[in-house]
Amino acid sequence: MSKVYNFSAGPCILPQEVIKKAADAVLNFNNLNLSLIEISHRSKDFVEVMENARALVKELLNVPDGYQVLFLQGGASLGFYMSALNFMKKENGSAAYINTGVWASKAIKEAKRLGDINVIASSEDKNFSYIPTDYTVPTDVDYLHYTSNNTIYGTQFQELPKAEVPVICDMSSDIFSREINVADFALIYAGAQKNMGPAGTTLYIVKEELLGKTGRDIPTMLDFTTHIKKDSMFNTPPVFPIYVSMLTLEWLKNLGGVSVIEKINNQKAALLYNEIDRNSLFKGVAEKDSRSKMNVTFVLTNEALQPQFDEMWQAANISGIKGHRSVGGYRASIYNAMPIESVQVLVDVMKEFEQKYA
Amino acid sequence: MSKVYNFSAGPCILPQEVIKKAADAVLNFNNLNLSLIEISHRSKDFVEVMENARALVKELLNVPDGYQVLFLQGGASLGFYMSALNFMKKENGSAAYINTGVWASKAIKEAKRLGDINVIASSEDKNFSYIPTDYTVPTDVDYLHYTSNNTIYGTQFQELPKAEVPVICDMSSDIFSREINVADFALIYAGAQKNMGPAGTTLYIVKEELLGKTGRDIPTMLDFTTHIKKDSMFNTPPVFPIYVSMLTLEWLKNLGGVSVIEKINNQKAALLYNEIDRNSLFKGVAEKDSRSKMNVTFVLTNEALQPQFDEMWQAANISGIKGHRSVGGYRASIYNAMPIESVQVLVDVMKEFEQKYA
Repeated sequence: MSKVYNFSAGPCILPQEVIKKAADAVLNFNNLNLSLIEISHRSKDFVEVMENARALVKELLNVPDGYQVLFLQGGASLGFYMSALNFMKKENGSAAYINTGVWASKAIKEAKRLGDINVIASSEDKNFSYIPTDYTVPTDVDYLHYTSNNTIYGTQFQELPKAEVPVICDMSSDIFSREINVADFALIYAGAQKNMGPAGTTLYIVKEELLGKTGRDIPTMLDFTTHIKKDSMFNTPPVFPIYVSMLTLEWLKNLGGVSVIEKINNQKAALLYNEIDRNSLFKGVAEKDSRSKMNVTFVLTNEALQPQFDEMWQAANISGIKGHRSVGGYRASIYNAMPIESVQVLVDVMKEFEQKYA
Repeated sequence: MSKVYNFSAGPCILPQEVIKKAADAVLNFNNLNLSLIEISHRSKDFVEVMENARALVKELLNVPDGYQVLFLQGGASLGFYMSALNFMKKENGSAAYINTGVWASKAIKEAKRLGDINVIASSEDKNFSYIPTDYTVPTDVDYLHYTSNNTIYGTQFQELPKAEVPVICDMSSDIFSREINVADFALIYAGAQKNMGPAGTTLYIVKEELLGKTGRDIPTMLDFTTHIKKDSMFNTPPVFPIYVSMLTLEWLKNLGGVSVIEKINNQKAALLYNEIDRNSLFKGVAEKDSRSKMNVTFVLTNEALQPQFDEMWQAANISGIKGHRSVGGYRASIYNAMPIESVQVLVDVMKEFEQKYA
């Protein structure tokens, strides 16, 4: 059957070699004659997977000493609450949040249960089509929180804000896509299901010395120190999602690492945005200086042509480019595992569409 | 290569046909030419998986109207806290717990953060080798909590206690192994990785009318009502663990359901316990009237023969029968997916061992 060009926003495309290896491990893992999913998580074979996955995160992101890498459950949605719970002081707790859309708003909602939240900047006035730049981070809050990339609107912080206070960042949709300086952060968290692996595990990179200072009683499973003490094995971890994440991180390492994929991601994004800007039948949704290199949002200049365009990309075996309902139009997600050749297929369809209908 | 007889306590044996179908779906799901793990969880194909998995739980356990079935993340370990959070009243909250071992103790620890905990019975005096029977459930507590099967010690409630107050049961290690009356419970929860599927999802069966009565502010992700409103799709669910759970439940349904597997489980347990009781070189750990049909714990009557026995079962390709460090000896976990023929292999080794060394 013919190849499908998968532009899904997440869960999303994974490298083909990762998918093959994952299927092999489900049948027979490490030649044990047992499936990956029926062995003890305390077995030597799985402990190696967990250690390898954590080591790859450290290597690929140059994680400095003093930071711990955890693979937990619950998604970034649980991370919204856990991040506040582990960093907001019990007495007079407060934090600064930048509101760049649905995910940031959800993080704000959970944090409000625990302290005083100062939304220091928001792009809600223009349906989150840009990244706010005009704000000051107070120096008397417990932390600053923001979302580095906003899948729905196709916006992304071009430079990641720093602050004097601890910085917490939800990097669910662009982690491992570009170089970052982990030392700038108190906590980075990310659901796996974009650039790291399948749905079912969440990565946390946390500066250990900042923990345990809130004065709160933190439930065992929501306390990062629980998981640090047990090397992410306090309870049974999500074995398969962690294994596939390990495979994906190995794939990235073999490719040359984050600096190499960043260049490829820049090329892919440039290819698609150039076409959107050049082609008279399309226009971008996000403001140019806020454009995401992971999720490219665009609309037709003439909405009446939607059925024709939809027919064309479907005929080209493209899938997953319908825009989120709150934005409309189209969204092409071009995560790490998306080859530039697949982006070219979409660009070719857009060119053909222009030739036929402009 | 030769078959391995997998007696692992969990993650544990799954049906071979489930493993094959799971590997197929990782390569190409529903003939979409896409992997199960790279499609949107909002796609028609995955929504069907989630609906089918929930429907199978309802069918297999005869879940009455008024109960909701959820597939969440975090394991039973997060369930310890979530169950208390959703059922313990904020003002003067209290609950009764039966302490049958490590897992029950962990549940007690999390609940103590939220209210007054009355441990109405405990078998700690004999290293949890029996199920307490001498207790009264107070009628003025918010709920009763217990663990139906205790993997580490090989004990199991032979009859599941009822109470006038809402009953919450952690059934992680014996759900779907025997018939239960869901109507007796306010909440049943269970990590998938024994009789339901791979690690990475947790089943909750909750009586909806009892929710929302605590007077507490409950964080979004820890609130059962959040997940009920969104049909377990509030955030990205753990796609692969849920899919494999669906396959395992389908397998159980095709086998004839819970009543059929219960008979098989009874036969398997009888086969192994009879050998333990008959064979002069072995003795059971759990008291006879508390024996688990899922986890069979036993020790050698002559510990000096351990190297000889270990060599024999290893030579027979048996794996995963080492006892938990807190009990020692051996533990043969004989969950639903374990065929009686595999139990016979272990029994044959035990007989051979007796012939050689008794």
